[in-house]
Amino acid sequence: MVPDGEVDLAPSDVAAFKQAFRRHAAGVAIVTARHPDGTPVGFTATSLASLAAIPPLASFNMARTASAWPAIADTEYAIIHMLGARNRAVAELMAADNGARFLGDHWTAGPHGIPIIRNVTGWMLGRIVERLPVHNNAVVVVQIEDGAIGDEDDALVYHQSTFLRPGDPA
Amino acid sequence: MVPDGEVDLAPSDVAAFKQAFRRHAAGVAIVTARHPDGTPVGFTATSLASLAAIPPLASFNMARTASAWPAIADTEYAIIHMLGARNRAVAELMAADNGARFLGDHWTAGPHGIPIIRNVTGWMLGRIVERLPVHNNAVVVVQIEDGAIGDEDDALVYHQSTFLRPGDPA
Repeated sequence: MVPDGEVDLAPSDVAAFKQAFRRHAAGVAIVTARHPDGTPVGFTATSLASLAAIPPLASFNMARTASAWPAIADTEYAIIHMLGARNRAVAELMAADNGARFLGDHWTAGPHGIPIIRNVTGWMLGRIVERLPVHNNAVVVVQIEDGAIGDEDDALVYHQSTFLRPGDPA
Repeated sequence: MVPDGEVDLAPSDVAAFKQAFRRHAAGVAIVTARHPDGTPVGFTATSLASLAAIPPLASFNMARTASAWPAIADTEYAIIHMLGARNRAVAELMAADNGARFLGDHWTAGPHGIPIIRNVTGWMLGRIVERLPVHNNAVVVVQIEDGAIGDEDDALVYHQSTFLRPGDPA
């Protein structure tokens, strides 16, 4: 069942799944929210996807073991940030130690007190309309209610564990 | 509420939503399935995302008005293909007239008779475990049960309506 030249993956082989997914590139986003107690939460996501334009809907995936999950589970809104190449450092920061993600002046309080990361290429305020639990994970769907566009930049791409700029036409 | 230098988006402004999402790059995948009557269906997707590694889960988004939706709604399995730069033409084909998507020898019948696109960088057989309807759209979650890795290539990236290769480090 494997066409010529392909190497079969063993089912249930986690390394093989990760190897296959490394063939896939992704745009990089940051999702932020505010815990009901006011604590800002956020994380770097490579799963942001458009779901529809009318109404404007987007989705992202996360682990329900993530530090930001209790906030996302309890709150009504999140902010999705589109990142440019100039935002590489903050993308790394928001994927590192969660105690340090909001130490600094790289963010400001936006709508509903939710952190807005400064100097991004765009952000959107999303009302959380679905949280679909799947094993220890969740797909989260937001309906966009507001947003802004920042200065242009090359989009930030993640591929093979590296942050990249878009390249030449394929 | 808009940091300095940003341009506010009007809420419910579809053009603004699309403009913001154009700041985001995406990897390109092809999803295929088989209608219960045997008809092959498929489409190019820029929404493929990993959801978990244990168990291996992935998600993609689609319109429930899409030609492939009746098959995805009714069938147990789909195949997700990771694309390289060499697959650009088939990515365009699988996004064009749905009557022409399987005319040619660019595919073969794989597990459960589902089309496998030839010469991709990887494919995975996914059992459909969730279909979350949201307005006229759906988030589909698959659990990976099998797959194969093809020859290496630059990943295929979609950004600002253009198919690209990954570029330099950001």
